[in-house]
Amino acid sequence: MAAEEQPFPKPNRPTPWAQMAPQLVDVAMGRKAADLVVRGGRWVNVYSGEVIDETDLAISGGRFAYCGPDASHCIGADTRVVDAEGRYLVPGLCDAHMHVESGMVTVSEFCRAVIPHGTTSMFIDPHEIANVLGMAGVRLMHDEAMGMPTNVYVQMPSCVPSAPGLENAAASLGPEDIAQAMAWPNIIGLGEVMDFPGVAANTPRMSGEVAATMAAGKTVGGHFASPVLDHAFHAYAAGGPADDHEGTRKEDAIARVRQGMKAMIRLGSAWYDVKEGVRGITEDGLDPRNFILCTDDCHSGTLVNEGHMNRVVKHAIECGVAPVTAIQMATLNTAQHFGLERELGSIAPGRLADFLLVDDLERLTISSVFAHGRELARDGVMVADLPEATYPDSAKNTINMKRDLTAQDFDIAAPVTEGQVKARVIGMVENQAPTVALERDVSVAGGLVDCDVEADLCQIALVERHRATGGVVNGLVSGFGYNVPCAMASTVAHDSHQMIVVGTSKEDMALAANRLREVGGGVTLFREGAELAMIEMPIAGLMSDERAEIVAAKADRLTAAMAECGCTLNNAYMQHSLLALVVIPELRISDIGLVDVRTFQKVDLFV
Amino acid sequence: MAAEEQPFPKPNRPTPWAQMAPQLVDVAMGRKAADLVVRGGRWVNVYSGEVIDETDLAISGGRFAYCGPDASHCIGADTRVVDAEGRYLVPGLCDAHMHVESGMVTVSEFCRAVIPHGTTSMFIDPHEIANVLGMAGVRLMHDEAMGMPTNVYVQMPSCVPSAPGLENAAASLGPEDIAQAMAWPNIIGLGEVMDFPGVAANTPRMSGEVAATMAAGKTVGGHFASPVLDHAFHAYAAGGPADDHEGTRKEDAIARVRQGMKAMIRLGSAWYDVKEGVRGITEDGLDPRNFILCTDDCHSGTLVNEGHMNRVVKHAIECGVAPVTAIQMATLNTAQHFGLERELGSIAPGRLADFLLVDDLERLTISSVFAHGRELARDGVMVADLPEATYPDSAKNTINMKRDLTAQDFDIAAPVTEGQVKARVIGMVENQAPTVALERDVSVAGGLVDCDVEADLCQIALVERHRATGGVVNGLVSGFGYNVPCAMASTVAHDSHQMIVVGTSKEDMALAANRLREVGGGVTLFREGAELAMIEMPIAGLMSDERAEIVAAKADRLTAAMAECGCTLNNAYMQHSLLALVVIPELRISDIGLVDVRTFQKVDLFV
Repeated sequence: MAAEEQPFPKPNRPTPWAQMAPQLVDVAMGRKAADLVVRGGRWVNVYSGEVIDETDLAISGGRFAYCGPDASHCIGADTRVVDAEGRYLVPGLCDAHMHVESGMVTVSEFCRAVIPHGTTSMFIDPHEIANVLGMAGVRLMHDEAMGMPTNVYVQMPSCVPSAPGLENAAASLGPEDIAQAMAWPNIIGLGEVMDFPGVAANTPRMSGEVAATMAAGKTVGGHFASPVLDHAFHAYAAGGPADDHEGTRKEDAIARVRQGMKAMIRLGSAWYDVKEGVRGITEDGLDPRNFILCTDDCHSGTLVNEGHMNRVVKHAIECGVAPVTAIQMATLNTAQHFGLERELGSIAPGRLADFLLVDDLERLTISSVFAHGRELARDGVMVADLPEATYPDSAKNTINMKRDLTAQDFDIAAPVTEGQVKARVIGMVENQAPTVALERDVSVAGGLVDCDVEADLCQIALVERHRATGGVVNGLVSGFGYNVPCAMASTVAHDSHQMIVVGTSKEDMALAANRLREVGGGVTLFREGAELAMIEMPIAGLMSDERAEIVAAKADRLTAAMAECGCTLNNAYMQHSLLALVVIPELRISDIGLVDVRTFQKVDLFV
Repeated sequence: MAAEEQPFPKPNRPTPWAQMAPQLVDVAMGRKAADLVVRGGRWVNVYSGEVIDETDLAISGGRFAYCGPDASHCIGADTRVVDAEGRYLVPGLCDAHMHVESGMVTVSEFCRAVIPHGTTSMFIDPHEIANVLGMAGVRLMHDEAMGMPTNVYVQMPSCVPSAPGLENAAASLGPEDIAQAMAWPNIIGLGEVMDFPGVAANTPRMSGEVAATMAAGKTVGGHFASPVLDHAFHAYAAGGPADDHEGTRKEDAIARVRQGMKAMIRLGSAWYDVKEGVRGITEDGLDPRNFILCTDDCHSGTLVNEGHMNRVVKHAIECGVAPVTAIQMATLNTAQHFGLERELGSIAPGRLADFLLVDDLERLTISSVFAHGRELARDGVMVADLPEATYPDSAKNTINMKRDLTAQDFDIAAPVTEGQVKARVIGMVENQAPTVALERDVSVAGGLVDCDVEADLCQIALVERHRATGGVVNGLVSGFGYNVPCAMASTVAHDSHQMIVVGTSKEDMALAANRLREVGGGVTLFREGAELAMIEMPIAGLMSDERAEIVAAKADRLTAAMAECGCTLNNAYMQHSLLALVVIPELRISDIGLVDVRTFQKVDLFV
């Protein structure tokens, strides 16, 4: 698809060091003038692990040609000279594992949001779009990424669908797709291998995908989402995954490092793993080189208001990690992990000239951001344009419902006509991705379940939206706190991205679902027939085509509207969007029904 | 040549992890039995930088399948179980840069000598044979290396000849040869780029070779043999070399690390750089991960009597480096540098099962050596056989002299008939590779220079032996201390490996040279017409085909014989063999004449 339509600007790849070396040598020798010389900075040297005062940098063709005490011999008539005025020279920050889709914006808009925060390299796993648009969707984001003025590498999604047999996504990828993608120019490896039981069981899908990636000499990303470090954990390490960001405890990070994996430690919008994850370094004095920082998932609101990798590094420093070590964990360590040490992640000759001017190292206050030798942002504001990225129609109009829904579609028929019945209820856990499998006595009136708002019981529905089957799976959820007639619908519904509707009013549930069908996907909240909030996400039903700050404002409005309806959760939208994630315990909903993720079995609503 | 003659056993390459992963997973899960289980060791974990007690290892197909607290579930009826009895489990040691030829033995014999000392990975630069036999010689050692039971990777020699225009080797390699070799299965990168002025000058040879290596994604080895860290040093870093072992001072190692290069620190038979090189770590607390240990050059005597990489690691510990850090510098750091982190250099799942059982970590006393899961040595003795490696005739008979020489060939005609004349004299420096350019008044009798033994003045001759030109270049050298009529000749004559003859007696000089012609090369010492010592080196005139301990014994005899003749130098044979090394200052001899390596100019013998 992408190849035919060519929706994006042509790739913006820097010339390889191998070709550029003679020019860099000429500049370092003073025979040719540099494009840019930065004078008088404090070099945060991630190789030696020290800060070197009074350092000059000379840059040519987007790469460092000279890093040392005096670059005056590299300055010519056309050289731009920047006085660092004693500020720190910090390598551009790397996000080692993340999903652009979590920002609800395109790759371009994500970059526009995070470049001012110092992120110049991202390793993105377009797992969400892959579930909706398959290989074509991955290729679109892959191609869009190649046009960025920063480094955006793509991890090929490994688990599409996440849970075969327990859900139906719009697409399905296997070892042959992975092998094919490994030849794409911007694929850096395989994205988080979530099917860890599949690795331990040597399923053809998982061993085939891992083997294809390793044979291509690329990096297999991990995702061992269990606190039980048993034989399956050891088998997972033996199976090939080379990193893991799912361990949330101190001992999880240490266990991964000991097995030769990189412990990726997350600070996302809703992941707070850094404080625990760095304790092996700060308390036990372990070698920090195999600890890496990442975000995994960030909302546009976090990006706009709080920052990105600068927020993670700053937090690691607050948790006791030495500033240069924390910076290594977001630069050199990441680059080494992906085999890119000679390309990025440091300020050193030959590498891409991705660097930050930083006023305060501990607080990581960034005054300028350079990538490939170009100044892209200053004082938190972009000063360079990004190429226009317009997604093709084939990536839109993905809400394929059979018909508009009515309130009756959300009727839950009970096995009794009146009285009480015991039902399985998805229990939310504040600030955590796992749910708990509750059992509750629920009221029945006229043969239908009658939700009890005062008992914090809502209806949840999984609305099929990929193949127009007309399917609606109904269930129950507790924990949102909605106390008025309302409903929220989202086509962001990890990981198969059907549609999740949660509500206290069946009428509002129908209105919300139909409204998303109308706009091509997104998130909306209705209260007593009125639309309180809407984030349109026309691209695969997952991403807006608007700017991050606009999306962030709409998301703020959504959060406020949810609170107006009584919702008390800290990250209510994310919690909502994860309720179909049939790979994380305990109880979830999918298009095949309720799923107990402790046993990987479909279960009945009624006990 | 090699392809047709196939002189070596077939390659002994381990199955890639990508293919082996399902089997390793089965073993880790307890579904298949391991080949070998080691129980109750103390795991030197180079990833976390700690020692973990009570560790079991399970090995299958030559790779680690399980590393953790209890591998009892991996044991089957046919599993060999080794009780580590609390000994340390240390990754097999890596020599990051070395020349097999310096051991005067074949790759196989070198391995036989060093495996009992714990070296399981070597990165060899067959620079010497390349100067004599060109690509065919490199391919022979490359193919021999692939049959070893350990990991022997080949760095493609970059500077053949070392100093074009200042010497004539038997072969000449250029960018096209390098590009071709990068496709050979066992080439890991480019060997030490000694022509550092060529890099700084962007000569087509150097930039072409470096570009071909980088384009192949392989590692460019460095060799910046100057203490002046000027623009040329920075240009060298920008030009692509990724490591350097030539810095001998504390500040040299630090400067390289800061530039994003790996500081390789040597302890060879005659290189004692570790004590200085580690000071950045021990005194300044720099990040040790970019410091790597190597030997560069070791005689067979050192290998047999003192050890190999175990000697280097032990010495680093003695110099104050923490034991686990010192081990990292000879294992994980090396593997990462060459892009082999997922293949070797650690005890971790998936990696090759190369490991040592060590009784005492500080003294690195090795009781067993395993490679690819096989026990190769125990208590310092090989317990496994190596394949037979017989070099073809094409690699022998390389002494191509026009005729036998006579004493008259070593006459040095002076510009006066009697009296004194001022001459340039090569001055040896004890324990150092550089020489000093002396000027001395020498006696003349009958129109010929008359060497003054009491003034420690000898004759030196460079005898052409590659193209039968009949060329003999005569000069003067001081520092050997010979005080009887004698002469030593060697066809090991870095780097073009013509023949160097040093003597106080022209008759003995002729005898020694002719004797080497007779035996096909090597080193011999004559005193008053009698042969005192001989090491035959029929392979390219550089390597013996005998066992290392036999060669070591002959070398001991040579050293003793030199001492009997008055020589007082610590490493007299090596000093002798380096006198034609026209890339290291100050004064050298080559087949074109005397060369001043400060100016890279040919100079006259007489001032």
